[in-house]
Amino acid sequence: MFPSNVTIVEVGPRDGFQMEKTFIPTDLKVDIINTVAAAGVRVIEATSFVNPKVIPQMADSAEVLSRISRNASTHYTALIPNAKGAQRAIDAKCNSVRLVVCSTETYNQRNVGMSVAQSIAACDDIIRMTQAAGIGFEVIIALAFGCPFEGHVAEAVPVTIAHQLAAKGITSIGIADSIGTGNPVQVRRMMSRLRAELPHVHFSMHIHDTRGLGLANVFAALECGIDTFDSSIGGLGGCPIMVGGTGNVPTEDVVNLCEEIGIPTGIHIEGVCEASRKIQSFLGRALPSAILRSGTRRQLFKM
Amino acid sequence: MFPSNVTIVEVGPRDGFQMEKTFIPTDLKVDIINTVAAAGVRVIEATSFVNPKVIPQMADSAEVLSRISRNASTHYTALIPNAKGAQRAIDAKCNSVRLVVCSTETYNQRNVGMSVAQSIAACDDIIRMTQAAGIGFEVIIALAFGCPFEGHVAEAVPVTIAHQLAAKGITSIGIADSIGTGNPVQVRRMMSRLRAELPHVHFSMHIHDTRGLGLANVFAALECGIDTFDSSIGGLGGCPIMVGGTGNVPTEDVVNLCEEIGIPTGIHIEGVCEASRKIQSFLGRALPSAILRSGTRRQLFKM
Repeated sequence: MFPSNVTIVEVGPRDGFQMEKTFIPTDLKVDIINTVAAAGVRVIEATSFVNPKVIPQMADSAEVLSRISRNASTHYTALIPNAKGAQRAIDAKCNSVRLVVCSTETYNQRNVGMSVAQSIAACDDIIRMTQAAGIGFEVIIALAFGCPFEGHVAEAVPVTIAHQLAAKGITSIGIADSIGTGNPVQVRRMMSRLRAELPHVHFSMHIHDTRGLGLANVFAALECGIDTFDSSIGGLGGCPIMVGGTGNVPTEDVVNLCEEIGIPTGIHIEGVCEASRKIQSFLGRALPSAILRSGTRRQLFKM
Repeated sequence: MFPSNVTIVEVGPRDGFQMEKTFIPTDLKVDIINTVAAAGVRVIEATSFVNPKVIPQMADSAEVLSRISRNASTHYTALIPNAKGAQRAIDAKCNSVRLVVCSTETYNQRNVGMSVAQSIAACDDIIRMTQAAGIGFEVIIALAFGCPFEGHVAEAVPVTIAHQLAAKGITSIGIADSIGTGNPVQVRRMMSRLRAELPHVHFSMHIHDTRGLGLANVFAALECGIDTFDSSIGGLGGCPIMVGGTGNVPTEDVVNLCEEIGIPTGIHIEGVCEASRKIQSFLGRALPSAILRSGTRRQLFKM
């Protein structure tokens, strides 16, 4: 039932950094990305190509991508809001792009100024552009379990969006519990259903730990065979719109869970902690990762 | 597979308070216990009857039990190290007592100055005493997944202790991941095995959230039908011997998990948060509970 190995998509440099009010120097962004790559993380969401007036923290996205040490075994991706962002990401030599489509109209309007249908329609151009450029394209269905504006989101809503995307030929879809309102029973039901109904699509998950259920939800998804998870170093991040939102599941903690139950990730936890400590030191506050604070069982037992 | 309802054993007043260096005034201890009872918690580990020279925080155990408002629907229990402690708990009119037997010799010696076999043998007297007094008796098998001194604990070790206790006629046994080194696969395997091999024993679990796996472990135990969990308000607590140990799974967060997946607990989360805020205010530091920090999904969605 468990996948044979797990791929971590490190989203700290995007989902984490975008929440920080203080501009993180480009040098430090580059250093963090290189440190994460050196720890064995195979996919890094390095930045986003959004309007810098809306998210000033991401104003140096092209410079970040031009200055990182490109590791041959690492895949660098970026979040995009639309086709314009896709072009900027292609110009910056991303290995893939990720588009967010929200499950609710209110959130999608506030996030990208488009209806859900418009965001889905925008995929047509992005499919052509990424195919021409020879890079990957994944769509993240956000707010898949709940929305701060519209409340509970019925399972059928993200499932229908996934079918609409799959009908366009999109084969990589992420399901995001963006505000941490999902529970393991919902995760298991939704991910089992999606895998059964759309067997040719590869599904990843993006989980926030707002109500302490982050790793329980990861575990439930692993039980359904989900093998790719977004996470952020130290548990950085939150929600740019909702006050009180908290971060992604911490990369250290997801890697630790996988390794403790025998699923390899190819990642050195201590290398991830090194990246977390660098950003923690810059930010001047403790990040929420339990492994960053307490270390692993193997460290405790000197194994 | 899930239990039809869950009983929370609030251990904050014992496992939580014993870790605090500042003496918590008896008035506040009494207030916290009464607040937790008013929130609908049916079992409260109100104190421990240990040597006050070793744990000065518990020096007022008899006074605490004499001064709380005895709620007819609430069961007050206390931790005891031996038969002497059992007598003090009986004198203080506890509804039950809980004895800790560690899985490893080193920890049991440091904890109660006895071998594991001596702790198990001590149960004979306590069985007689509690039966004569008409109160309950539960044994907690601690360090069931790992020990800070002896490292990994093989599954057979706590399972063998459980068989030895069951052979004495003990029908309530708790399995404690005292230092948070267990994972959901181990929890599921151990709890399924214990329930299958000892069907007449009621098993509870006591889980620490040291490496972020607390609620994932609770979820795995729920899947095995485990219906009773120790937890502490706000996630108070730690390990008196191991430096860097962290608290129990937070009561708010366990109740939230149960309710989100449809298992009633009879507990008002807001009432638990009220108790957590009282002790948080006294201690002057934020407690780790995610629900205490972020609120529930229902609060967010104004349901």
